[in-house]
Amino acid sequence: MIQLDDLDRAILRLLKEDARLTISEIAGRLGRPESTVHFRIKKLQEQNVIDKYTIVLGERLQPKSLAIVYIQAETPIIEDFLERYILYLMKTLSMFPNVLAVARSGKAGIIALIGEENREKLNRFVDETIRALPTLKKVEVFPIDSFTKGKEIVGFLVGV
Amino acid sequence: MIQLDDLDRAILRLLKEDARLTISEIAGRLGRPESTVHFRIKKLQEQNVIDKYTIVLGERLQPKSLAIVYIQAETPIIEDFLERYILYLMKTLSMFPNVLAVARSGKAGIIALIGEENREKLNRFVDETIRALPTLKKVEVFPIDSFTKGKEIVGFLVGV
Repeated sequence: MIQLDDLDRAILRLLKEDARLTISEIAGRLGRPESTVHFRIKKLQEQNVIDKYTIVLGERLQPKSLAIVYIQAETPIIEDFLERYILYLMKTLSMFPNVLAVARSGKAGIIALIGEENREKLNRFVDETIRALPTLKKVEVFPIDSFTKGKEIVGFLVGV
Repeated sequence: MIQLDDLDRAILRLLKEDARLTISEIAGRLGRPESTVHFRIKKLQEQNVIDKYTIVLGERLQPKSLAIVYIQAETPIIEDFLERYILYLMKTLSMFPNVLAVARSGKAGIIALIGEENREKLNRFVDETIRALPTLKKVEVFPIDSFTKGKEIVGFLVGV
């Protein structure tokens, strides 16, 4: 396990808020020498504590209508078939640009985050593309209206 | 609406993969003059197409056990009470470090992403903290086992 001290955490918090901060700016804010901050960031990168530097896209590029969709497949007699079918469904869903995230949920379930321009398009996608998938037992739709935490995942996940 | 052309999109895709790329590196990869790339990035930032530069934390800092939890509140007679109660629940949930995201879902629903070290701790949090909230009608738990898309949200959302 990686041991992070207060300085490591302070650096990570600053970079989470703005990954463009220079070493000199971080050193200034934390009242530490640049050489120390430089060494720590290098170490955090090497240890893969910092996995990636990326951007979050602004609201105007984000889908306006979101929903979490839970899909449960029929459980057939041959278990090996279910396994292959779930993986096939997950891969298929992942290919749609309006499907922002896809995860497996239990043996026969898939959970996906869908984003569309508006509620009508979202409903149409769920009805025409998801509910049309063969041998599903259940499709549950949870519309997402507003966030109190994690709002930025939308601009993080959306493609260009 | 913002009009993005192929060059804007190519720049955004490169920055999504590695936001530390220099203007000169981006210009080199796309076979465009540095001045053009500089101008485009400046414009994308000013228009808030690029909202933020950030980091994704590596696997060793990420919770190992994840679940989406859907919470539905009892609908009381006084609607104004429901509204305040839902907002109170959302704020309360948002304060837990192991609650990575919280969103409203419909009039009486909340959907949250929970992350814990292991399945046992996650189940305990759901049972002792979430199911213990007063006047809930339903709590549905969807474990998240593996992603085919959007896996990086975990390292994006996790706090330090």
